[in-house]
Amino acid sequence: MIKVGIAGATGYVGIELIRLLSQHSEVEIVYAGSQSHVGRPLGEVYPHLRSLSHLACSPLDAIEMAKQCDLMFTALPHGQAMTLVPTLLEKGVKCIDLGADFRLKDPSSYEKWYHHLPACPQLLESAVYGLPELGKRTEIQNAKLIANPGCYPTCSALGCMPAIAAGIIKAEEIVLDAKSGVSGAGKALSSGSHFCEVAENFKAYQVGGIHRHTPEIEQIFEEMTGYPIFVSLTPHLLPMVRGLLVTAYLPLSKEIAAEKIWEIYANAYANEPFIRLYPFGQLPQTANVRGSNYCDIGLIVDERTKKLIVISCIDNLVKGAAGQAVQNMNLMFHFNETTGLTHLYPVYP
Amino acid sequence: MIKVGIAGATGYVGIELIRLLSQHSEVEIVYAGSQSHVGRPLGEVYPHLRSLSHLACSPLDAIEMAKQCDLMFTALPHGQAMTLVPTLLEKGVKCIDLGADFRLKDPSSYEKWYHHLPACPQLLESAVYGLPELGKRTEIQNAKLIANPGCYPTCSALGCMPAIAAGIIKAEEIVLDAKSGVSGAGKALSSGSHFCEVAENFKAYQVGGIHRHTPEIEQIFEEMTGYPIFVSLTPHLLPMVRGLLVTAYLPLSKEIAAEKIWEIYANAYANEPFIRLYPFGQLPQTANVRGSNYCDIGLIVDERTKKLIVISCIDNLVKGAAGQAVQNMNLMFHFNETTGLTHLYPVYP
Amino acid sequence: MIKVGIAGATGYVGIELIRLLSQHSEVEIVYAGSQSHVGRPLGEVYPHLRSLSHLACSPLDAIEMAKQCDLMFTALPHGQAMTLVPTLLEKGVKCIDLGADFRLKDPSSYEKWYHHLPACPQLLESAVYGLPELGKRTEIQNAKLIANPGCYPTCSALGCMPAIAAGIIKAEEIVLDAKSGVSGAGKALSSGSHFCEVAENFKAYQVGGIHRHTPEIEQIFEEMTGYPIFVSLTPHLLPMVRGLLVTAYLPLSKEIAAEKIWEIYANAYANEPFIRLYPFGQLPQTANVRGSNYCDIGLIVDERTKKLIVISCIDNLVKGAAGQAVQNMNLMFHFNETTGLTHLYPVYP
Amino acid sequence: MIKVGIAGATGYVGIELIRLLSQHSEVEIVYAGSQSHVGRPLGEVYPHLRSLSHLACSPLDAIEMAKQCDLMFTALPHGQAMTLVPTLLEKGVKCIDLGADFRLKDPSSYEKWYHHLPACPQLLESAVYGLPELGKRTEIQNAKLIANPGCYPTCSALGCMPAIAAGIIKAEEIVLDAKSGVSGAGKALSSGSHFCEVAENFKAYQVGGIHRHTPEIEQIFEEMTGYPIFVSLTPHLLPMVRGLLVTAYLPLSKEIAAEKIWEIYANAYANEPFIRLYPFGQLPQTANVRGSNYCDIGLIVDERTKKLIVISCIDNLVKGAAGQAVQNMNLMFHFNETTGLTHLYPVYP
Repeated sequence: MIKVGIAGATGYVGIELIRLLSQHSEVEIVYAGSQSHVGRPLGEVYPHLRSLSHLACSPLDAIEMAKQCDLMFTALPHGQAMTLVPTLLEKGVKCIDLGADFRLKDPSSYEKWYHHLPACPQLLESAVYGLPELGKRTEIQNAKLIANPGCYPTCSALGCMPAIAAGIIKAEEIVLDAKSGVSGAGKALSSGSHFCEVAENFKAYQVGGIHRHTPEIEQIFEEMTGYPIFVSLTPHLLPMVRGLLVTAYLPLSKEIAAEKIWEIYANAYANEPFIRLYPFGQLPQTANVRGSNYCDIGLIVDERTKKLIVISCIDNLVKGAAGQAVQNMNLMFHFNETTGLTHLYPVYP
Repeated sequence: MIKVGIAGATGYVGIELIRLLSQHSEVEIVYAGSQSHVGRPLGEVYPHLRSLSHLACSPLDAIEMAKQCDLMFTALPHGQAMTLVPTLLEKGVKCIDLGADFRLKDPSSYEKWYHHLPACPQLLESAVYGLPELGKRTEIQNAKLIANPGCYPTCSALGCMPAIAAGIIKAEEIVLDAKSGVSGAGKALSSGSHFCEVAENFKAYQVGGIHRHTPEIEQIFEEMTGYPIFVSLTPHLLPMVRGLLVTAYLPLSKEIAAEKIWEIYANAYANEPFIRLYPFGQLPQTANVRGSNYCDIGLIVDERTKKLIVISCIDNLVKGAAGQAVQNMNLMFHFNETTGLTHLYPVYP
Repeated sequence: MIKVGIAGATGYVGIELIRLLSQHSEVEIVYAGSQSHVGRPLGEVYPHLRSLSHLACSPLDAIEMAKQCDLMFTALPHGQAMTLVPTLLEKGVKCIDLGADFRLKDPSSYEKWYHHLPACPQLLESAVYGLPELGKRTEIQNAKLIANPGCYPTCSALGCMPAIAAGIIKAEEIVLDAKSGVSGAGKALSSGSHFCEVAENFKAYQVGGIHRHTPEIEQIFEEMTGYPIFVSLTPHLLPMVRGLLVTAYLPLSKEIAAEKIWEIYANAYANEPFIRLYPFGQLPQTANVRGSNYCDIGLIVDERTKKLIVISCIDNLVKGAAGQAVQNMNLMFHFNETTGLTHLYPVYP
Repeated sequence: MIKVGIAGATGYVGIELIRLLSQHSEVEIVYAGSQSHVGRPLGEVYPHLRSLSHLACSPLDAIEMAKQCDLMFTALPHGQAMTLVPTLLEKGVKCIDLGADFRLKDPSSYEKWYHHLPACPQLLESAVYGLPELGKRTEIQNAKLIANPGCYPTCSALGCMPAIAAGIIKAEEIVLDAKSGVSGAGKALSSGSHFCEVAENFKAYQVGGIHRHTPEIEQIFEEMTGYPIFVSLTPHLLPMVRGLLVTAYLPLSKEIAAEKIWEIYANAYANEPFIRLYPFGQLPQTANVRGSNYCDIGLIVDERTKKLIVISCIDNLVKGAAGQAVQNMNLMFHFNETTGLTHLYPVYP
């Protein structure tokens, strides 16, 4: 049993972490840090948690966290985790950051996309990007600080990586048309999250390569190929709560049989517990992964336009955030990688 | 480990049973009976189940079920379970029927409401109505055949029972205004279940005491009070998938302080693992129980009109169907009553 | 052609007024008053209005409004219209207030329910409650100031009035179970209007006779019967944008044939252009009135519990607000009562 | 006043035609042909139409239609209009087909995509493709038979045409990522249209250039460019009723300033009453056109990947079907092109 805390426990990612961690056999939640609800019992802030936890919300105090926790999850608006993490690491507390503070390796890239300096550039170096399927599980296991990937990068990368690795696509012409449920934008109020503005509506946002998940995806792809790649990522907002689907258009760089491509994916993901590759002719849909840590993937080859089209989908709050963080925790503490995640069976319908 | 089967495995209640039972530590699913998909793997019919089960669909054959199972769940349109259950019981297989075939004790009442004869009136006698909170756990534990309650009756009865038992309301004037998500009507196609007819729409249906759950509720209340009671139940269809909420209007028969009423409920449900009574001022909402076996209850006393208003809500597929069936199974087989149900933490948002 | 203005033009009721008035043959919109968007073109604030109006938002300045307008619609949070209306009336501008400031005739009742003094109690006297179907069209035609009814009172009263007028129900035992789409709560941001808190969710709110539309309904019923009546109104929030449905439970005070009741309603509403009474066996649903000024009504007699159950529904933004205001304007200015409202045909699906 | 009829009056496109035509000043609806509801009043089949029309459904009988109508709209499953249209034309009745029967000029293409022979290949020649913005209004005005465009082709073509015409994009690399509400699939029941399968879900379908609207789009583009073009069209199903949005990825073939591109579009659509081009920085959303005949268009230039990204959206039942048909009718009968369409102001929210 390890003791864990959550900084940002009352956001949507925070309460999803609580849902998952409260059922995890190796973990005890001892700290629920919150900016806005200090002193209130969690079950009062969120009555759906009433039966679960007698935890009350505590302040975002790194010293106090360090006294009580072996591991802290930080699920905070960007720029905030970087004020807690250095202290936590110094005190020997491992950290998994579900925000963006440690994802971009290049400080100047961070500054360009987030419009302020990364507070602790020296930590960017040591932070391990926590996408287990990227093939660096040993690094994750040895990490003190994990940068938990964003939801769009997780879903996009899992959909494209085998094809990129196999060198069968023109990596510089990737189009990623991405669609997300509203919970991906968090609990903050804005006119864009008002029910009447979202229901029975659909729109693109931050079009033209300006979404901050763009450099994160490009960093993954550059690491894989060794050369810089610009991707065209267009996020859209779906009138639903959970679920993220990416339609990736990957121009083929050579003649290759569709079956052969499917085999490439099947081999790449043969031992991945949370990737489910669909047989040809079946396509995934977000409802098939709702509430679970799965990433479901379907492949189509359009021979008329010589493109591989990959449909990948995840629950943005699970594999796109809290579930992937638990998966990383399992690796860091040498639990079974799937502990606490397998009972999260998709809630369908 | 007991071996269980499901007749009607590919309906919405069936796949919810599979979600629950596949994570239950004392159970192995060995039979998935289906009318329409015999021979097909479950994971092909429902790709969200692809990682779970290598079960293929089998025919609705009682002899075959009896060979393989200790317990059968029947989740079939009314009139069908009664063709399987007699054989199953005879062969020593326990049964939990999630349909309506064994809920009404009085054969003539069944005939009146369902427009055909109950096939095995002698079984109506021995069937135990499986609402554990009604206070007959011993009967459930000893039962061979459980009539699992309907979703409206479960939510209505749990909301009203303590007040009726305490004799503080005019039981003959109960108004139950009930609202359900669409999954309560099952997977059958009808113009009423078409997305475009339900989304951004709201309606009442089967108004005026004609819904078949009416006599089931009245049977519970009559059993509690000893005299016949007519309730006014009005079902409505909500533009959402899961969730059922009942607003019960209970005219008070005497002066009584609101706090006293709250205590009556608190005492009645003090040891109930799946009832969550809210403090005054907080009201439940269906999202708070989504995916879980909880019934959440809030109380309001309207002193101007001298009414107790009870808001109760459940996930119609869990406490209103599959979850309650698992709870009954746990009792029948002397497992812990909450086994396999506690990790079903509400999926919020 | 009259010149009209809207104070509160950028709220949901305001933009609905613009949708209706911009197509009205006898009206020119000349003033769009807004608190938050002064100086911005309406088509920039709301791109769906881009083709319509070159109006820019003006401040909430009564003197300026009076210079330009023959009629002002005030669609503001309660307490604000009362600061504009006295000046407007004094300057000879007619007013239709879509808020609550002038609905309650009794100043002490207003104070009790709204927790502050009505600013101009002398105006309460002269304000005419603008529910045309209540039978006081002459008063509306002669009014200088209309208090446009609330959405719940409109739908509740239209459902109950003929039965109350006919003296066939126990008026003191009326239960009104009311359900509304989210647009009824306006555009203001709150955690309760966040998409993730509303979608796939259902809840009651302000239960126990505490919703401010309660005294408004009671005032209508008292005016009809001559004695005070307490109604039990329970509002609920539907996961949809538009639409309001009331299920009214009306205990019958005498034996009366269902057909006779239907005739009472048919006669009462024979000449009403916006009431559509359904034949027995058909029930209305909110989608049938979406975008239109209709109130659809269905009747059921539950002979087991001796209740008349009335289902009435409206589009809360049209007959529940902007449409009814236009209907009142038509009466005040002696246009045809249906001008500008008939082309608003229900948008289905 | 002309007399019009609708074959397929009880489908979703049919009832939308009735909504529009019933408010059209130059038109009387005299024939409502239906396969499944012959003899029933429309207001009984669809209670939302109760106030509108005393029309009853008539059989799909071309002789009878020809006796009564000057113009027939056929809104039928593919393969059915072609059995009525030859007779109608012969009897001098003009026709607007909202199905697919006359859209593809090349009979072999039709056969390839629809898997059966076009019944009247000689009519393919004379049918005019009714996309007014394509620039052949004179042909439409003189046509006896209009092939009303599909919803995806309308939205895709309107988004891409100015850029293609200006020769600034690599037309052979167009990616069209398209998303539609459920009403686009019509009223037919299928497991895919069940509310529980669509709500809180998102999926792609008919991926890989196999959707039948693909050759229709390619035909438009080929006509514009003079050479065959393969487009990559991926349709997706949105959990909403109305609305269609296309995200078009158009690789630029040359260096060109973003402002210059915007001007190209502004010029191309300067006189189009139903196209609304957004200023840079504003993006359209489907709610902005709901219920209206507008096509809203926004442009983004992604300089990193050298692509023009066009977001276009329509209401699939209006500009994507019934509204465009009325626009075509207005042209054919020399009414004002916008008659009966301008009062259809977007219903927002």
